[in-house]
Amino acid sequence: MNIVIAGLGIIGGSIAKALKKYTDHRLIGINRSRAPIDKALECGAIDQAGDREALRTADMLFLGTYPDASVEFVKDNAPYINKSCIVVDTCGIKSDICPRMNALAEEYGFTFVGFHPMAGKEKNGFDASDADLFLGASSIIIPGKAPDEAVNTLANLTRKIGFGRVVFTTPEEHDRMIAFTSQLPHVLACAYVFSPQCPNHKGFSAGSYRDVSRVANINAELWSELFIENKEPLALEIQTLIDNLTEIKSGIEKGDRRELAELLHRAKVIKEELGE
Amino acid sequence: MNIVIAGLGIIGGSIAKALKKYTDHRLIGINRSRAPIDKALECGAIDQAGDREALRTADMLFLGTYPDASVEFVKDNAPYINKSCIVVDTCGIKSDICPRMNALAEEYGFTFVGFHPMAGKEKNGFDASDADLFLGASSIIIPGKAPDEAVNTLANLTRKIGFGRVVFTTPEEHDRMIAFTSQLPHVLACAYVFSPQCPNHKGFSAGSYRDVSRVANINAELWSELFIENKEPLALEIQTLIDNLTEIKSGIEKGDRRELAELLHRAKVIKEELGE
Repeated sequence: MNIVIAGLGIIGGSIAKALKKYTDHRLIGINRSRAPIDKALECGAIDQAGDREALRTADMLFLGTYPDASVEFVKDNAPYINKSCIVVDTCGIKSDICPRMNALAEEYGFTFVGFHPMAGKEKNGFDASDADLFLGASSIIIPGKAPDEAVNTLANLTRKIGFGRVVFTTPEEHDRMIAFTSQLPHVLACAYVFSPQCPNHKGFSAGSYRDVSRVANINAELWSELFIENKEPLALEIQTLIDNLTEIKSGIEKGDRRELAELLHRAKVIKEELGE
Repeated sequence: MNIVIAGLGIIGGSIAKALKKYTDHRLIGINRSRAPIDKALECGAIDQAGDREALRTADMLFLGTYPDASVEFVKDNAPYINKSCIVVDTCGIKSDICPRMNALAEEYGFTFVGFHPMAGKEKNGFDASDADLFLGASSIIIPGKAPDEAVNTLANLTRKIGFGRVVFTTPEEHDRMIAFTSQLPHVLACAYVFSPQCPNHKGFSAGSYRDVSRVANINAELWSELFIENKEPLALEIQTLIDNLTEIKSGIEKGDRRELAELLHRAKVIKEELGE
């Protein structure tokens, strides 16, 4: 296939590198600025640099851009997109993105499949990209209105580049789960490091501080967009967390050791039953 | 030195194994139940099993027991403790423990030094102990009323068994910092897994879920004691976290992307400046 990758940040760059490492497809890179293109050419992550003209012969288009920018890119370039092309976003939110993409797909005749590669680092940009970023990770696919064949093409390709499991879901289910599994940890890492004690942590901290605060090193521009475009599910998760924190706080203040131990033990049971 | 270790759980067991690996001191183990003693003898972590009589010739006594149990052990066995012995606890809270230990030390003539090895795992018991658990970790020492010589003996010994840094502090400063660096992450891991979404996380989660939820696999009996004995500083940290979560939640609900990005960027700056 001719595969175009638009947006060579950590995700687009890693997709390019992984496709190059694990498949024989022809890879064309598009990026707003030139530097990532040069780097990708230099390390062989793409076969050539392209522009919208490359979309005319594309069998697949991966969008490694931010959510709104992904829709804008497709809107601006829709007339150039090959009608047999499978357009795939990589956004961390779906209810806001998929319907707009589906409308464009319907209007211009190409196919759209929603995709969320569940992998990342607390670094950004092409320099942070890695051919093995996706090893063992979840490939979340939102088929929407796409034909089975296109969905299978994407699913098989993600397995080939290292994903450990493929999950099919709806935009709403995706956003509700991601609010909990990914967005909430980012919110609370930020809330955590705002404590006045944080700057003095050295010498008093170990693994649990490190783990909770890790993703406070956040890409503020990207995540503020993701948070706001997933407002309701995320606000609900934050409120649930606040309620649960309040319950534990009350238990501590009440000072009944057995009662508090029973509450904490419930968490242990949940965590143990999940196994990971 | 003759070093007695009372309580061969993960901490006491790791101290025994580390002392055996990195020093030539003679090690005597005491434990309420017999199984950990047999395991420790079998793997050579201790030279012999002992009872209170061993305290008469002890140069140092490490307490690997829970906080209240540590005070009880010393109270019950104080008449047996050699007057030149340095008694060292390993509790995760200090304001509640150190004054009671200091009073016993004064009454019976031995020396007490507070100690908190900043290392652990989400597993417990002798089976989880490890000679290299403390490699690079912080050794927090609360000198209190102990003579410099005893404090230095402990500090040097902890460096010898792998600790990467020694921090001297007061019980109050210790408890305030630990509330933030260690207790709060445990509270929020429990609060986090109480979300109704948690049991369905598989396929939707990656590193940030794993990191935040890790310590929800909590020793409920131990931590309920630690939380309640550090009630005020911990309740204050939980409330600070709730306030900061509420601020971010408001920013998300307001929906001003630039304003939210600025707020999140503050977290990134804090985290980056700390470097780790």
